[in-house]
This record gives sequence, structure tokens and C-alpha cells, in this order.
Amino acid sequence: MYKKAFIKDVLARGQDLEGSSVRICGWVHRIRDLGGVKFVILRDRTGMLQVVFKKGELEERVLKEVEDLREESVVCIDGFLRRAPTREGFEVAASSLIVLSKPVEPLPLEVHSSLKAGLATRLRYRWIDARNPLVSKIFLLKSWVARKFREYYSSQGFVEIFTPKIVASGTESGANVFPVLYFDKVAYLAQSPQFYKQFAVIAGFERVYEIGPVFRAEPHHTIRHLNEYHSLDIEVGFIESYHDVMDYVEGFFRKLATDIKEVSDILEAFQAPEIRIPETGIPRIPIRRVYEILESEYGKRIPYGEDLDPEAEKLLGSYVREKYNSDLVFVTEYPWRVRPFYAMRKDDEPEWTYSFDLLFRGLEVVTGGQREHRYERLRENLRDKGLKEEEFQYYLEFFKHGAPPHGGAGMGLERITMQILGLQNIREARLLPRDTERITP
Amino acid sequence: MYKKAFIKDVLARGQDLEGSSVRICGWVHRIRDLGGVKFVILRDRTGMLQVVFKKGELEERVLKEVEDLREESVVCIDGFLRRAPTREGFEVAASSLIVLSKPVEPLPLEVHSSLKAGLATRLRYRWIDARNPLVSKIFLLKSWVARKFREYYSSQGFVEIFTPKIVASGTESGANVFPVLYFDKVAYLAQSPQFYKQFAVIAGFERVYEIGPVFRAEPHHTIRHLNEYHSLDIEVGFIESYHDVMDYVEGFFRKLATDIKEVSDILEAFQAPEIRIPETGIPRIPIRRVYEILESEYGKRIPYGEDLDPEAEKLLGSYVREKYNSDLVFVTEYPWRVRPFYAMRKDDEPEWTYSFDLLFRGLEVVTGGQREHRYERLRENLRDKGLKEEEFQYYLEFFKHGAPPHGGAGMGLERITMQILGLQNIREARLLPRDTERITP
Repeated sequence: MYKKAFIKDVLARGQDLEGSSVRICGWVHRIRDLGGVKFVILRDRTGMLQVVFKKGELEERVLKEVEDLREESVVCIDGFLRRAPTREGFEVAASSLIVLSKPVEPLPLEVHSSLKAGLATRLRYRWIDARNPLVSKIFLLKSWVARKFREYYSSQGFVEIFTPKIVASGTESGANVFPVLYFDKVAYLAQSPQFYKQFAVIAGFERVYEIGPVFRAEPHHTIRHLNEYHSLDIEVGFIESYHDVMDYVEGFFRKLATDIKEVSDILEAFQAPEIRIPETGIPRIPIRRVYEILESEYGKRIPYGEDLDPEAEKLLGSYVREKYNSDLVFVTEYPWRVRPFYAMRKDDEPEWTYSFDLLFRGLEVVTGGQREHRYERLRENLRDKGLKEEEFQYYLEFFKHGAPPHGGAGMGLERITMQILGLQNIREARLLPRDTERITP
Repeated sequence: MYKKAFIKDVLARGQDLEGSSVRICGWVHRIRDLGGVKFVILRDRTGMLQVVFKKGELEERVLKEVEDLREESVVCIDGFLRRAPTREGFEVAASSLIVLSKPVEPLPLEVHSSLKAGLATRLRYRWIDARNPLVSKIFLLKSWVARKFREYYSSQGFVEIFTPKIVASGTESGANVFPVLYFDKVAYLAQSPQFYKQFAVIAGFERVYEIGPVFRAEPHHTIRHLNEYHSLDIEVGFIESYHDVMDYVEGFFRKLATDIKEVSDILEAFQAPEIRIPETGIPRIPIRRVYEILESEYGKRIPYGEDLDPEAEKLLGSYVREKYNSDLVFVTEYPWRVRPFYAMRKDDEPEWTYSFDLLFRGLEVVTGGQREHRYERLRENLRDKGLKEEEFQYYLEFFKHGAPPHGGAGMGLERITMQILGLQNIREARLLPRDTERITP
């Protein structure tokens, strides 16, 4: 290898390395030419460092290469690390230069000013845009959230599963699924691992999680929807009620809130606050009570038995922030008519379900609940939704041979990332968004 | 919750819990009726435990429930833990029983004898088959491999990425991709994250990894192929040669070999040996030399410039086991004609490439190499393969604005699992296989 050390690691050892020869590699971020001296800011994933090329001190061949440097040239530089009045406290006095790659045409977007371009342009040239340190931090945070998810659920006895994305039917109804030509059959892309995470619990794995892509053929044009995103899914058997599922979801968000200091540099870069969860826990408010709160506090009317709209979610977000000092709120007992057929209905009030959404700063980021595990009840639920039993036969079968009570939740990785950092559009949190307009780059 | 403790954890604390009340939950594995006493073996994900129901000591209501128990009933049992001459050294003297779920029809497959059924039947009723402890261990090992992969590459400065599975073109040619109806366009399912892991390196993330589904529309009927599987992918920038990539792959397999003792119970259950890697490293043998070895040692002739067939892979596996005491071998410098257009060709011998496969016990489990990062060369490669530049325009663009030399590898999670345990069919290592016949369950 070009013995590449990350710039961050070189700087961390700056005191020891002072006066020593170092090799740093990366992209040329900026160039400043002062005649006899050329200053180059070199950038890698972890940081930036100023490099000084002094004409009198370099070979002719190297000088020629330095003259040819452009922004976004990819280089390795050997030189001596020395103290300097830069932000990093150090700079490199270059002794040689290896050019690994040069732009073959003018840049359509400048890395250091990429955020001034419109989002459409940035996504069009995302491989340049993502080199902007502020943009790349979004994805470093996203991978951190995924890691925390695995850490937390592994510690709770959950096992990772790998379920198929090519499926025989949608999890809800025929709508909103992408058809796949699968040899001589028509199959679909999974809208969620719903059926198969339940399958895994019933197959004896008891507590399972998965991080994987999900596909939604909804022709949305909003700042909150993607047609392909990554979902953090859990499913757990032997629950007593859907409160157990909320406990597991709450545990994960508490871990995020506690460990967020590990990525404090990213929060600071976005001026994002910490995650507030009250000592007493995340409030759990039945949706019927939410209707009342919205009407009495904000004059906002949601028809009884309907889902919350984005404005209602925002208002409720403000309400719990003020009233409970909480960034999060569980809305519980959603109406049966807005939940899918596999939701468990309340014993005494079958028009309502043992289900919940979790709102994070006024946006739904998690959906979950207890599932109907009783074979006959499940058939009734299908009938009640006007769905054909035949189409779900393969799913119904799972429940014929001993299925523990179970529930689970699906969490949007991009939505959680978006809400932690306060991003304005969910596309910001997806390296390569797929929406109605985009299947490239 | 039903305060469910895993059976393994109860047994681990057996000494302390002896004489205490415990609650265990799971599936009824077997029932033995001795008239006045009923023995039930209860099973959960982690183990089994004998439960004793003694008629004289139980309420009428409980007795009735005990009578109704069937294999695969899902129950929670309260009782006292006591020493017993069972394999576990303990049993539970039941005081009460909660039946959570009962089979609604006779079992099409018995869990304790599921392995006697044919694979087709087992996959048809996989949610029952997977309850067999030997079967479930396959998937516990698989999730362990995935965890080790993340641990190793995280420790090497790799970042997790989440790339789209809906793509505008295949990574090789038009063949072997599943078409997706994406709104009013035709898109495809990604055969691998190849283009987008390269994208991520070029976008400044430098070292990336991903675990995700890949889709191959190959109408295979073999014991080594699946149409959907999970791929462990890495890509790394700033390499000096493709040996750097092999070093990273070797590091991961060394970690597997070292840490495998963490799952020694699983290896034992399958009578699987440890993973042998010689001190001197995994042998790296150019394919031209492999042709010679196969011919001189085994009389096996592979036409010069062709890929190895499964028999050749097996023979080479035996050869390195004998000669190097190694379970693994890198075959290097594959012919250009059998590698995809993005492979980097050798400088001095353009009919050969800087690429490799890794064979594990005679089966290819990893494919990798250095990628062509030079824009003009990449265009030449496309032309040389007879591919249309227009179709790969969106990919070519990534290389126009500073792309470091890079390479990477894709590893089959199911194949690695299969080879560690010595499974006979890759479908054994996939909970829900997708092949030409199967899109359900």
C-alpha cells in the first residue's frame, strides 16, 4: 500500500511525529499559489492538512507535477511534519509528490462549495458532493447508528437474520410494490421484512434483527419519503404485550442518547442538540388522547379514527418537548383501519390495535406493535381487510404449528439520521437516493 | 414480558437457582407419558430442559392443559429447578403451565427428526425445520460470520455503506439480471454492489464495506448457487497492488480461524474441523501455474485461458491441503476474457488481470481484484468487451474527477458458512432460499 495513514491519526500523533517524515494521501482540496511557495490543502476521509511546496527545495520533476495539480487530484505526499499556525497546529513541508489520478475534465461541482449548489445538482454529482466533509459526516453518523442498533439488540439476545427481498406478495395489499420478472414468474420486492422476521421468530429464533433495504413503490414527492431505504427491523417472541416491544425500542433510543457523545464532532458540525429523553421514559399516548390534545392545544382537527398527518406529528412533537422535555413520543393504539392486517386488535375494542408509532422531533421514525399470532384471528383479519386468503396462504401457514405471541418494529435508518442532524430532506441522508426521478447515478 | 429467560442462561446459573422457582418458555420438543408422570422436553433457541408434571401435585385445570399438550405447543412453565440425571444435570418440577399457542393441524414435519426428510420438504416447511437445533446452529454461525466481518473491517478503518439495489444496468452485461418495473422505467436488481462500492471509495470514503442481498438471474440448478444471497463486500482505495486487497481478505479469514473457538459448540455439532491457515500465509498461485499443477498432479486439463471448473477447484483444494496444510488458496491473475470489464489488466500482459479468487476447501468463496480507475483505460476495457459505453455512462463518470487506485472483494456469506460446517448444499445455509423453483415460503 502507499502506507496511507489517515490524516486524523497523523495529527493525533503530531507531537511524536514532529520533525519526522510522514506520508499522507488524499484529494487536493484547495491550492494557493504565492509564487515561490505553493500551499495545498490535502483532504482525506478523516481530516485536512496543509502541505507546503517550496520551489527552491524541490526537484524539477516534482515542481512540474506540482504545477499540474488541480483541485481533486489524488496524490500521496512525503514530507516533514512541522508545527504551523494552522487550525490543525501542523503542516507538512513536502519533499516529494506522487500523482495517482487527475480530473480529466473541469469539475461540475466544487467540493468546498458543493453545499451552495441545489440538491438536484449535488445528487447528480454525488461522488463529488460526498467528498465535502460536512456531507460525508452524515454517512459516518448513519453507519454509527447502524452499529449502535446491532450492539444494543445483540446485547439483548437478538440474532441477526438475512431474509429474502424477492417475495411472492406484498405485506399489505397489492399496491405499492415493485414487480420483478423472476424467471417465468412475477414476484415483488419486499416492502419490509415483516413476514420473514415473524417467520424467523416462529422458526425458533425468538428475537431477531435485520438491517436491509426495503422498497416502496409509492409515487411520493416529499422530503420524508424514499422509494428505497434501509430499515432497522426487530421482532421478538414471548411478549406479554406491545409495551414489551416499546421497551425494546426505547432501550435502543436511550442507547443512542447516551452514546451520542461518541460522535459529538458530527453533532457540533451540524449544530445538532443532544437527544432528550425524560428520566420517566418516553411518553406513550393513545392516539385517541392525541386527537384531543391536538384539538384543545392547537385547534388542529384530525377526523376520529384517522392517521396523523405531518402537521399533526409536528405539533405533537412540540407538545411533548414542552410538556415532557422529550424529543420522542410513542403514539399508541392506532385505529385498525389504518394498520395492516397482521396487526393485533385490542381484545375489548377491535376497532383499535396494539400498535404504535414513535415520533422523533415531530417525525414518525418507527412503526411497530404486537402481531396477530392466532391462526383463526389472522384469517378473520384478512377477510376484514378484504384481502384474499389464497394470496397470503404461504404466510398463514407459518401460524399453524405453534407460534408464540410476538411483536416488533421497523425503524427508518435515514429518518433517524435526518432527525438527529436536523436535515431538511431525507435525500440528504441517502448516498444514492432512489425516487420517482432517480435511478442513477 | 413472560419474564422469559433463555434455557442456556438458567442452566448456567443452575447451581444458584437449584431449589428456586424458575420460568422457562419455549416449544414442546417431546412428550413422554408414564401415567402418573408426564415428561416434557422444552426447547428454546439456546437449549433444552426436561420438565416433570406429576399428576398428584397439580391443579385440575393445569392437568387438563398438560393432557392437551402436543409437540410444538408453545408454553411457559413455572416450576422448581432441581438436579436430575439428565444431560443438562437439571430438570424443572412444574407447578403451573401457560399455553401460548397450539398447533392447529398435525405437523407436516417433526422437529426432532426433520433432518431425515428430504431437503425439498424441509425447505417447504422451513419454519418447522429451522427449530431443529442442528439446523438453527447453521444460522447462528452465519450471523457470527457477519459479525466477525464487521468487527474486522471496522478495526481496519472501513466504513459501512448502504448502496441501492435498484440499478440502471447490470455490472457485467445485460445477462443474468432480474428486471424490475420501476414506475414507468425498467430497472434491474443489483448483481453486486460493485459499482457503488467503487463509487463510495471515489466519493471519499476510501475504505468501505457492506453486507447486503445480491441477485443473480442465473438459471442454475447446482448445490453451489442461489439466485439471491448475501454478499460481504469490501472496497479500498489507495492500494499499491491487488496484493493489498488479498492482504485485507486474508486478515478476515485469519480472524475467522482465530476466533472460531467462540463457536466451538457449533463446530462440534457438525464435526467440523478448525480452519487451517499456514503461518506463512495463504498461498497465492497464478492461474497459469494452477493449470500446470492440475495437469501434472491430477491429469486434469483446463484449456489455457479458461476459468477453473468445480472439479478443478476441488483438486486444487486437495493440493494445497497436502502441500501447504492450508484450507485456503488464492488463485491469481485470471484471464481477462473471464473477468468483467472493470478488472485491471496486467501492464505487461493485458490478456491477464490483477484479480483473484479465494478457494476455501475447494470452493470459490471470494472474488476480487484491482479495478481499472483510469478513465481512458476503462473506456478501452468496455470497447474490448463489446459493451456499449452509453449503457455505462453513469458509471464511467465517477472516474472523471479524481479516482484513487482501488480494489476490493465480494465474499459469499452462505458459501463461507457452508464450507466452515461442511454442508452439502448451499440451500442449507439460507433460511429462505430463492432458486428457479422457489419464491415461497
